[in-house]
Amino acid sequence: MDNKKVKRSEDYSAWYNNLVKSADLAEHSAVKGCMVIKPYGYAIWEKMQAELDKRFKETGHQNAYFPLFIPKSFFSKEASHVDGFAKECAVVTHYRLKTAENGEIVVDETAKLEEELIVRPTSETIIWNTYRDWIKSHRDLPILVNQWANVVRWEMRTRLFLRTTEFLWQEGHTAHATSEEAIAETKQMLEVYADFAENILAVPVVKGIKTANERFAGAIETYCIEGLMQDGKALQMGTSHFLGQNFAKAFDVKYATKDNKQEYVWATSWGVSTRLMGALIMSHSDDEGLILPPNLAPIQVVIVPIISKKEEEKELVLNKAKEIQSALRKKGISVKLDDRDNTTPGYKFAEYELKGVPVRIAIGPRDVANESVEVARRDTKEKQVMSSIDIDHKIEHLLSQIQTNIYQKALDYRDQHINAVNTWDEFIDALENKTGFVSAHWDGTSETELKIKELTKATIRCVPLSNPQENGICVLTGAPSKERVLFAKAY
Amino acid sequence: MDNKKVKRSEDYSAWYNNLVKSADLAEHSAVKGCMVIKPYGYAIWEKMQAELDKRFKETGHQNAYFPLFIPKSFFSKEASHVDGFAKECAVVTHYRLKTAENGEIVVDETAKLEEELIVRPTSETIIWNTYRDWIKSHRDLPILVNQWANVVRWEMRTRLFLRTTEFLWQEGHTAHATSEEAIAETKQMLEVYADFAENILAVPVVKGIKTANERFAGAIETYCIEGLMQDGKALQMGTSHFLGQNFAKAFDVKYATKDNKQEYVWATSWGVSTRLMGALIMSHSDDEGLILPPNLAPIQVVIVPIISKKEEEKELVLNKAKEIQSALRKKGISVKLDDRDNTTPGYKFAEYELKGVPVRIAIGPRDVANESVEVARRDTKEKQVMSSIDIDHKIEHLLSQIQTNIYQKALDYRDQHINAVNTWDEFIDALENKTGFVSAHWDGTSETELKIKELTKATIRCVPLSNPQENGICVLTGAPSKERVLFAKAY
Repeated sequence: MDNKKVKRSEDYSAWYNNLVKSADLAEHSAVKGCMVIKPYGYAIWEKMQAELDKRFKETGHQNAYFPLFIPKSFFSKEASHVDGFAKECAVVTHYRLKTAENGEIVVDETAKLEEELIVRPTSETIIWNTYRDWIKSHRDLPILVNQWANVVRWEMRTRLFLRTTEFLWQEGHTAHATSEEAIAETKQMLEVYADFAENILAVPVVKGIKTANERFAGAIETYCIEGLMQDGKALQMGTSHFLGQNFAKAFDVKYATKDNKQEYVWATSWGVSTRLMGALIMSHSDDEGLILPPNLAPIQVVIVPIISKKEEEKELVLNKAKEIQSALRKKGISVKLDDRDNTTPGYKFAEYELKGVPVRIAIGPRDVANESVEVARRDTKEKQVMSSIDIDHKIEHLLSQIQTNIYQKALDYRDQHINAVNTWDEFIDALENKTGFVSAHWDGTSETELKIKELTKATIRCVPLSNPQENGICVLTGAPSKERVLFAKAY
Repeated sequence: MDNKKVKRSEDYSAWYNNLVKSADLAEHSAVKGCMVIKPYGYAIWEKMQAELDKRFKETGHQNAYFPLFIPKSFFSKEASHVDGFAKECAVVTHYRLKTAENGEIVVDETAKLEEELIVRPTSETIIWNTYRDWIKSHRDLPILVNQWANVVRWEMRTRLFLRTTEFLWQEGHTAHATSEEAIAETKQMLEVYADFAENILAVPVVKGIKTANERFAGAIETYCIEGLMQDGKALQMGTSHFLGQNFAKAFDVKYATKDNKQEYVWATSWGVSTRLMGALIMSHSDDEGLILPPNLAPIQVVIVPIISKKEEEKELVLNKAKEIQSALRKKGISVKLDDRDNTTPGYKFAEYELKGVPVRIAIGPRDVANESVEVARRDTKEKQVMSSIDIDHKIEHLLSQIQTNIYQKALDYRDQHINAVNTWDEFIDALENKTGFVSAHWDGTSETELKIKELTKATIRCVPLSNPQENGICVLTGAPSKERVLFAKAY
């Protein structure tokens, strides 16, 4: 439990790194920049996948799978895409190894590819090259496809989950007959992400639009959800892009309309990644370890029997523990009974605190006699002795309360950390002496945005969707502005 | 529906390729040797994944994720592993592209990796390098981990699902304190695969042991399940390897025993891949298209309303169709109601035959009046008019019958195609004039096995686990033998 060595308030970054490792979520691998996702971390990711996949299917999407490799020439086809991307990529140049005379394994230079292959950093190009054959007529539209995959973007400075060379994600790629339909899809998927973030991850998010500077390479408009971490830094948690006809034009994807005209197809793409694991950890956890919202916890309840040395008492306690486990399981609650007898209850308590298990039930011989149990919740650390009668309903209710409470706490924190400012001095003061978002007027130019970034390291996280329109002046240039935007330092 | 152009009996290979494409399962991509798995094909693969994953978890395994890339030097560490593998691999040599002066995208030669990275062909090396840090004591064992991932083995001659450069699979990698435990795990996972193949894929399999020649590179013993396709060729459908201490020694993975001695850890690995899609298609399908076992069919029942032009009748028929759909769904049956009115019933019938939907229900105005429906099963092509009363129970029962029948048909075919022979002439005759497995005595030497392969292209598929012991003489050399083995031409 190395995470106890560093307090969150003292060194947030070291606290995060320690927690990811000590809670058995992930670790660095022998390959620079690539992580190993450990079973406990992967179990949380699987729960995220299941929740997202259900929502994708409910909105009419199907999964498919496209190749890991993309021919280099594909990247040149959409000019703005290649400028924004495709530079820091893993490049496959050969397809064979051989044993050299000295016995070493070396690359076989005779097995050189004619055209290099790029390990996908994102799949718009290979997918739109495929869609050309799938789409002939308006009857073939819309195409609503998602892919769960690994992608690679060569990173020099990496952090587990937040920025790694290889990461896991999903990427939706849809094709539509009209601009309106594609925009509606883009917005729908933003809502799906926001719903997932708030109701499953318990992380409140601001829905907004990225500025031209921060837009996805190749997109007409990028929508995003932005969360606020406990250190006051923002984290982009998901993006949904309206791609216009850019990729259709680059890959010559046309369809015959009802009156038999040839039109270019309209596109969207949208994705979230294992970065969400970072958001989850940084939004809720404390110095004792993870705090998992019940909707994502691989173990929702742990039962720790307090076992005495008397065999008879031990059996009574274990029987009661099993009875409770079985009652909770019938409610669909994931319960672990930890009956190891080579480990103290105190050690177990600390272990499940570290792992963020939402509810802990302890039962000793006296509890059995009294028909009671001790119930501790991870989020508030409150403990209470309660009657074990009807325990399944009580715990079910408690889990739902915990889910709500974790969200509410994060929401309160977020709302308390939106600093509205009107002058440059206030802007600088907020960035230097406060934490969180800074809500400020901006003159709408990329030039000013970049200048502010250069001066303060803060970026425009988004123009919130539900933004009140008000007249003001840009904090840097004094030029007129019609609405505030959210600045922050970000991961 | 291009598959109708080629009959299965005329050109099995062309029939297979056409079917994979026309049933929308998969297609070749722009990247040589890599496939695109289309939504309908991927939906079947997802059902396979769910069934396998459930079985892995029921036997105590957890999922995790390890890096896509493996440092080249790792392959040299286990000598027999590198000999059998690691030659036909995708090699990453650079990590950046740049725009050349002429505007072309080129590899940035200054961004050359110090050590090349190999795109994983299988993950024993990177995983055992990781396990070194996970395993210190007997208390850390066993480790029961599985990974769902993409892997790459550079193939010159590819076939959709059966042999592709990139494919999807799962690979289990377990670590144990004793040889006995590891062997028990190896056998357990073979049983899991056989159960899945027979009860879900409806493909009967022979469980057996590979000869030294056919063993996985780095394994002490390779167990396998072998299926027989409708053209009489064998297909290896899954393997489970007892790896001994080979990888533990190569990566120095030791544990402290209870009496505090340092011992090397014992290993297994086991995997099945998207190749199972090929097995599924080749075991059951016919000239009309796919035949899917209900346990894997994304659509188990399709309802086709026979709609007249009278609005009133149309509404009656559609209402009845929806009522049946809803009753079936309550039973957990996946039902599609195809109410498109720009397509004829005949066209729809052919489409769902091509896609292998197990049961088709047709309802016309007369059926509504008679409280009847026409039910057609895909496997036998039988049609019957039945009362629509209690239709949910009847269809549920029918689906279960179809699952059994598809398996039984494949089992009968397989059992009729095991040719026991005693002389070389009989052996050659069976291979040339019959199809299927040839059960023959073999002298147990690699030399003879390779000679037979050279002469006939037949390989030893396995030494069946439940093999009767009987004295005989090798069909090629006449040397004494204690049991028969199964030869076949194979995919």
